[in-house]
Amino acid sequence: MPLEIERKFLLSAFEPPPTAVRRRIEQGYLAIKADGTEVRLRRIGDGLVLGVKRGVSPSAGSPVRIEVERALEEREFTELWPATEGARVVKDRYTFEASGVIVHVDVYRGELAGLRTAEVEFDSEAAAEAFVAPDWFGAEVTGVKAYKNQTLATAGLPES
Amino acid sequence: MPLEIERKFLLSAFEPPPTAVRRRIEQGYLAIKADGTEVRLRRIGDGLVLGVKRGVSPSAGSPVRIEVERALEEREFTELWPATEGARVVKDRYTFEASGVIVHVDVYRGELAGLRTAEVEFDSEAAAEAFVAPDWFGAEVTGVKAYKNQTLATAGLPES
Repeated sequence: MPLEIERKFLLSAFEPPPTAVRRRIEQGYLAIKADGTEVRLRRIGDGLVLGVKRGVSPSAGSPVRIEVERALEEREFTELWPATEGARVVKDRYTFEASGVIVHVDVYRGELAGLRTAEVEFDSEAAAEAFVAPDWFGAEVTGVKAYKNQTLATAGLPES
Repeated sequence: MPLEIERKFLLSAFEPPPTAVRRRIEQGYLAIKADGTEVRLRRIGDGLVLGVKRGVSPSAGSPVRIEVERALEEREFTELWPATEGARVVKDRYTFEASGVIVHVDVYRGELAGLRTAEVEFDSEAAAEAFVAPDWFGAEVTGVKAYKNQTLATAGLPES
């Protein structure tokens, strides 16, 4: 079970590098609990996934999350998907290496069009802390609730 | 993916038949949605399961539910279990054949002690409708919200 340690940044502009792998992601939330625990369905490329995430420390801003994922069959996904109505996100994810780390840039679609974020995953909290964001990264939004996908899916884009 | 068609009855008394297989079930809910969709963790005997159930017709009383289940590793289960606090059920399940059908009798433990139910699963709605409950079954509670495990886990025993 992966322990997810990641930092997240806004991007004002983004030009995918030629090496980037692009995948369409559609995800919908079956549940979002007050403590931040989420249960989601995700279609990523050809993959269908049921995932549960839970913050190790429910306090805001903790970059460490527990994630459990299991593959679903197409029919299972299709039958469960309607239960995510009103809590969905569609985005294109570009994955590539930059500044010595793997970066996932998410370009949101639909009602969230205009939002772009970059996520970097780390093996340890020490590595996460040591990371220096490249110039083309904007404001850091790690742990900022308004920019969590579960919030974007239900509340839309932040006001400002 | 199993389509679950079942009927559920209260039992005033229960003496397990010698052929019954007994398993302890501990289950906790990660999420219970307004439409009845539930996400649960279940320890049944040695098995650890993540399950999602969704009613095909969200209208009350429909006996047909979609169920998706996936095995979890012990560590995954342990890490996610705390998120079910305040929404748990412990019961002993006795499974055996009676009146030509497979019956699951649940004898609840802990705060729900005293409650006993019998569940019968069917292959079709026609079979479910044709089923005649044996004498030792009490009131039918199929689809009755107060006796759903998700309600018992959060609200406790019904008043009456």
